[in-house]
Amino acid sequence: MDTNRYTESRFWMERAMKVIPGGVYGHLGPVEGSMIPPSAFPFFSSRAKGAYLWDVDGNRFIDYMCAYGPNILGYGDEEVDAAAQAQAKLEDCVSFPSFKMVEFAELLVDQIDSADWAFFAKNGGDVTSLALMVARAATGRKKAIMVKQGYHGAAPWTKQAGNPGIIAEDVANNLFVDWNNYEQLEQLVAQYTGQIACFMASPYSQGNFIDNVLPAPDYWSKVRELCTKHGIVLIVDDVRCGFRLDPAGSDHYYGFSADLICFCKALANGYNVSALCGTDALKAVASSIFYTGSYWMSAVPFAAAIATQQKLKAIKATEQFFGLGKKLTEGLVQAAHGHGLHLKVSGELPMWYMRITDDESQMLHQEWIAACVQRGVFFTNHHNHFLNAALTEEDITFTLEVADDAFRAVRKLHPQMV
Amino acid sequence: MDTNRYTESRFWMERAMKVIPGGVYGHLGPVEGSMIPPSAFPFFSSRAKGAYLWDVDGNRFIDYMCAYGPNILGYGDEEVDAAAQAQAKLEDCVSFPSFKMVEFAELLVDQIDSADWAFFAKNGGDVTSLALMVARAATGRKKAIMVKQGYHGAAPWTKQAGNPGIIAEDVANNLFVDWNNYEQLEQLVAQYTGQIACFMASPYSQGNFIDNVLPAPDYWSKVRELCTKHGIVLIVDDVRCGFRLDPAGSDHYYGFSADLICFCKALANGYNVSALCGTDALKAVASSIFYTGSYWMSAVPFAAAIATQQKLKAIKATEQFFGLGKKLTEGLVQAAHGHGLHLKVSGELPMWYMRITDDESQMLHQEWIAACVQRGVFFTNHHNHFLNAALTEEDITFTLEVADDAFRAVRKLHPQMV
Repeated sequence: MDTNRYTESRFWMERAMKVIPGGVYGHLGPVEGSMIPPSAFPFFSSRAKGAYLWDVDGNRFIDYMCAYGPNILGYGDEEVDAAAQAQAKLEDCVSFPSFKMVEFAELLVDQIDSADWAFFAKNGGDVTSLALMVARAATGRKKAIMVKQGYHGAAPWTKQAGNPGIIAEDVANNLFVDWNNYEQLEQLVAQYTGQIACFMASPYSQGNFIDNVLPAPDYWSKVRELCTKHGIVLIVDDVRCGFRLDPAGSDHYYGFSADLICFCKALANGYNVSALCGTDALKAVASSIFYTGSYWMSAVPFAAAIATQQKLKAIKATEQFFGLGKKLTEGLVQAAHGHGLHLKVSGELPMWYMRITDDESQMLHQEWIAACVQRGVFFTNHHNHFLNAALTEEDITFTLEVADDAFRAVRKLHPQMV
Repeated sequence: MDTNRYTESRFWMERAMKVIPGGVYGHLGPVEGSMIPPSAFPFFSSRAKGAYLWDVDGNRFIDYMCAYGPNILGYGDEEVDAAAQAQAKLEDCVSFPSFKMVEFAELLVDQIDSADWAFFAKNGGDVTSLALMVARAATGRKKAIMVKQGYHGAAPWTKQAGNPGIIAEDVANNLFVDWNNYEQLEQLVAQYTGQIACFMASPYSQGNFIDNVLPAPDYWSKVRELCTKHGIVLIVDDVRCGFRLDPAGSDHYYGFSADLICFCKALANGYNVSALCGTDALKAVASSIFYTGSYWMSAVPFAAAIATQQKLKAIKATEQFFGLGKKLTEGLVQAAHGHGLHLKVSGELPMWYMRITDDESQMLHQEWIAACVQRGVFFTNHHNHFLNAALTEEDITFTLEVADDAFRAVRKLHPQMV
């Protein structure tokens, strides 16, 4: 197979480095471990449609990162974009909110199993931060328990002391437990009796650089019981999983009920909105917190979100994701096997994590990912992937052909390695 | 003059109260003091165009809040919307950034006097928080000096201990000075030698409930000198003033140069983007901080921002704002005088603050504002207002007629008051 050239991406990166710190920052930058080696990856995009993304050199990719989550129906979904454009002709960001905000809140309260209300913001981190504030205000307690290797945004309190710009006070009240270790959580709650405001976690463990881990069968029901018993606010960070596992929320999917649940990413197929949903018991507290931003009540993302959620339900998107995910990951494992390699798939299928296990250094895995990218399948190295509803059986077939050719290529480079 | 009815607004508010904490939250809500008495104000909007905003009852308003800043060219500006829609047809939020991000960074670096680089986010608060982190990382110091009654967003560190959800650690390193009091600042710097990371302030004092105050003639030059001498990062929060005083930044307008400058609101005429700009000396530090969000590199707001900035320059918008602001505020003062009242105008004319000074309780002022709103001119009580480039001389004339009739109405209610 032919491999991509990235001449224009390099040209734009040179320009970017002059005027943007790091050129491209954050999780979309080439420096975070998920786009290594940088030589294999494009840096700047020019257009996207459905399951495909084109870079500035004109290379086409089947995009399994889906903007790290937001692309759930396919890029440029025509129904969502039509709803957004119709709203844009009326109004977007004005001096008091559109009634569309109320309609979207009503939709979420109806759809999300644990939700009695919704509050809208812009970043996933806006609503994880609000959830923490609500929990502290509701309990009068300071401490938050989180899972090691969890991710709840990029605000100072989500980081580690010693990270650039982070001071000890930012993280003084954070406590951590291992994922799925209920006894550890119970012990921490006993150790800090009456001091724990909340337990915040993703529905399952989606750490980077490590296999993803589903909840143990009784984990969430025991956590729910413990939190209720001790008046601890149970916060589910559903920013990454939301709407890929269950339209009613990932707590519903795993058979429990959160006190607060955070959504973003797939809420509006890429239109800019996030949401905190919660129970009636926390509604008055939530309304006591002054929290807002200039664009938080813009109408276009609400219209897009309504259209997105309606379409996801109409096409039974989550069923599609599990079906496509099964076919794709089984095919990838089989392709690896054909070249004497072992690909381990973990996490839920709509957002699977994968890793070649034959090489502890993960170098072989990185080379294989690079070879896929160079052949038009956009994977990254150490982060879970995402499926979208525009993917076809043909796309899966093409992906498996690319994966096979990429395995062949890395095998040729390392005939003795495994 | 006829006065508005808000039947539909009340209907939607009843629905909102069921599913949204407080119905409408934050600065756009009816509970913040700027929309008192609530009976005089609409709550939900249906459409907007140019200088006008229509509520769900079909009442039309000349909107002097301009979405609290974002509306700078007029709602639904055709050139900006065309640029946004053309970009939306190509791509918006995808897995790696569009080259539009680089083009917009180049534009800002060229346009903003103190900028060597730009970093993009979504909220004004995203970039004031990043500025604080950059300052701490660059200096290895913790403390931030701010101005009493300043506003830098709604993140925990911007608030007061004791506010719902805010803990002592969130604000442990905040120090405050009075606006324009250089000696106090100098004293604080001496008291905390080697501990001050930054001084963060708006270009002038825009507190709510108080007259706005411009910088004393030598204030900023002395502050700049003090910060340089002590290695303190000088951060200008230009979220509110940005692009209404000077396209090159409000530090440029007042004749000094910030180390870091924060933009949001008027950057893209309501499209969702914010920016931190800074000097080369802080570029490497900025790139060392992991900071990002799901939609932070979406292309549509960059395309809209480029179109917005180009048009603002082409039409010399800031000159328009000062001219319109002079005519409008002089007319309002004169109208008050005609009814034996005194209206005090403060702050810069493109975003003037006003207050009837005849009544210390501000009740008379609130009644007058309410009477204006009920007659189709959307002012609020205790917050500065904003001008946009779609306002015409006829709009100003209509506004002055409404203001006059509103003064007459409140005078009739309180014949003995003044």
